[in-house]
Amino acid sequence: MEYIINLLRLTQAQRSAFARAAQGHEQIFAPDGTAPDGSPLPAEVYRRATAILGNPPPELLRECRSLRLLQTRTAGVDRYNRPGTLPPGTALYSASGAYGQSVSEHMFAVLLSLMKRLPGYRDQQRQGLWADLGPVKTLDGAVVLCLGVGDLGSCFCKLCKAMGAHTLGIRRDLSKAAPGVDELRPMEELDELLPRADVVALMLPHAPDTVHVMDWRRLELMRPDAILLNGGRGSAVDCAALAQVMEAGRLWGAGLDVTDPEPLPPDHPLWRQERAIITPHSAGDAHLAVTMDRVAAIALERLRRFL
Amino acid sequence: MEYIINLLRLTQAQRSAFARAAQGHEQIFAPDGTAPDGSPLPAEVYRRATAILGNPPPELLRECRSLRLLQTRTAGVDRYNRPGTLPPGTALYSASGAYGQSVSEHMFAVLLSLMKRLPGYRDQQRQGLWADLGPVKTLDGAVVLCLGVGDLGSCFCKLCKAMGAHTLGIRRDLSKAAPGVDELRPMEELDELLPRADVVALMLPHAPDTVHVMDWRRLELMRPDAILLNGGRGSAVDCAALAQVMEAGRLWGAGLDVTDPEPLPPDHPLWRQERAIITPHSAGDAHLAVTMDRVAAIALERLRRFL
Repeated sequence: MEYIINLLRLTQAQRSAFARAAQGHEQIFAPDGTAPDGSPLPAEVYRRATAILGNPPPELLRECRSLRLLQTRTAGVDRYNRPGTLPPGTALYSASGAYGQSVSEHMFAVLLSLMKRLPGYRDQQRQGLWADLGPVKTLDGAVVLCLGVGDLGSCFCKLCKAMGAHTLGIRRDLSKAAPGVDELRPMEELDELLPRADVVALMLPHAPDTVHVMDWRRLELMRPDAILLNGGRGSAVDCAALAQVMEAGRLWGAGLDVTDPEPLPPDHPLWRQERAIITPHSAGDAHLAVTMDRVAAIALERLRRFL
Repeated sequence: MEYIINLLRLTQAQRSAFARAAQGHEQIFAPDGTAPDGSPLPAEVYRRATAILGNPPPELLRECRSLRLLQTRTAGVDRYNRPGTLPPGTALYSASGAYGQSVSEHMFAVLLSLMKRLPGYRDQQRQGLWADLGPVKTLDGAVVLCLGVGDLGSCFCKLCKAMGAHTLGIRRDLSKAAPGVDELRPMEELDELLPRADVVALMLPHAPDTVHVMDWRRLELMRPDAILLNGGRGSAVDCAALAQVMEAGRLWGAGLDVTDPEPLPPDHPLWRQERAIITPHSAGDAHLAVTMDRVAAIALERLRRFL
């Protein structure tokens, strides 16, 4: 008999589906790690688990000696795949595929908002000021360079293409299909491609070799009127360098849903950069109902296979 | 011999094309009504005109007794089509078709910005505040009702469809094609359609029967969490009623590029409405290079036919 800890936020219908799928096994429902009495689920409950669905506290997992499956509710699994976090033999699966729509739509909205100078108009609105801010940009005919074209990047490229952009995608494994990407290129060509791009979008997971992939040198390789976006992991951009580069008048704008450090400290110069849009890692999460439906569907399918 | 006054802002190449097209005729180039010496073009020059390309001061036109053609640089011609403005027998043409891309992209950016709560995040950014604002909206599966599906409305519907929306279009003449519109409906059905719509977009020209088409009663027919957009003429929305309805907590948001009155007075309550985005009639104008190229192409073709 398996012992399943289900930490997902579920509708009543979804919960029933998980209960049916695991008939004959034990399954504890504790949305976001909260027990029915409102207290955090105790460590001894986690220790009995053979399967966990959702995102448990990483520091408790090493003691879960019976654990064989961890299916997260997030697309990123960097809190769980560090050596020594999971007991040996535990299979780790992300909810990749659930967040593409939500994150790509958010970053697309941020991009269009920058192109059409909406942040500047918002600032004027607060002063009751009716004043034209001048020329704007369009995606029609623009070149969008997307670093990381998994679920997030591929969805983002599709949206940009629908408005007339030409999309370049960079990914490690060129043999995988990347819908929405016009040209798929290897990471080694990044320095050559940066000066071609009107938009540089980072949709990368956290990994040792993606830390500060956009450092000061590469930010300077971007066109002076290009736009930088980061919707993946904050570590991909050197935010101190970005603040300096923008203060020097370079870049049309930057849209960051993730930062380094994160949260961005209140005194960080990027908060004061008028050509930046900063959102608090809110592009994904459960902000679209469809995202949680997809997470539940992915986890249910994983549980069925496991059992 | 024709006497042509060309008030368009033109590139050197465009100007040459207009000069070639009117060989053997007289053509005065005065971008935006400014003579080569920087002064406004005098009334006596206008009075000799047989054709004007661009937007002359309307009050001067009645005296232009030889005028037979007015081709505006704008899509709206409401400053020129009032009785008594043009001399009898003058053909009036708008630059309809030139602004669809610019205006629809701007209103689309405003819509996505509202759906993803970007104005609220901008306000927080100015305080250095990293705080999640909660659930957002998507166009995927949403119903978009567009009043007026000429060039602007049709372009706008196409963009919404590309993100998964179902589009309803209202227009007077149902026999004309409206690309991007899933269902074309007559104005008489407006009251029935309003409660179905997640987004109500106004892309109407100014006309006596479009004044305050969205009055207090119709704003109340909208869903409590719907979004209102106006990218056509300010007169289509009763802005005082809109401010009241939104202050009462109704509507998810409103995006206005045009207002009534216009400019919006500094003390108007809509300026202080946090769920509104107000831009200063800047969606069209010459803010995209491609728009002025299209205006020039339309005017050049019109001039050739005239000559």
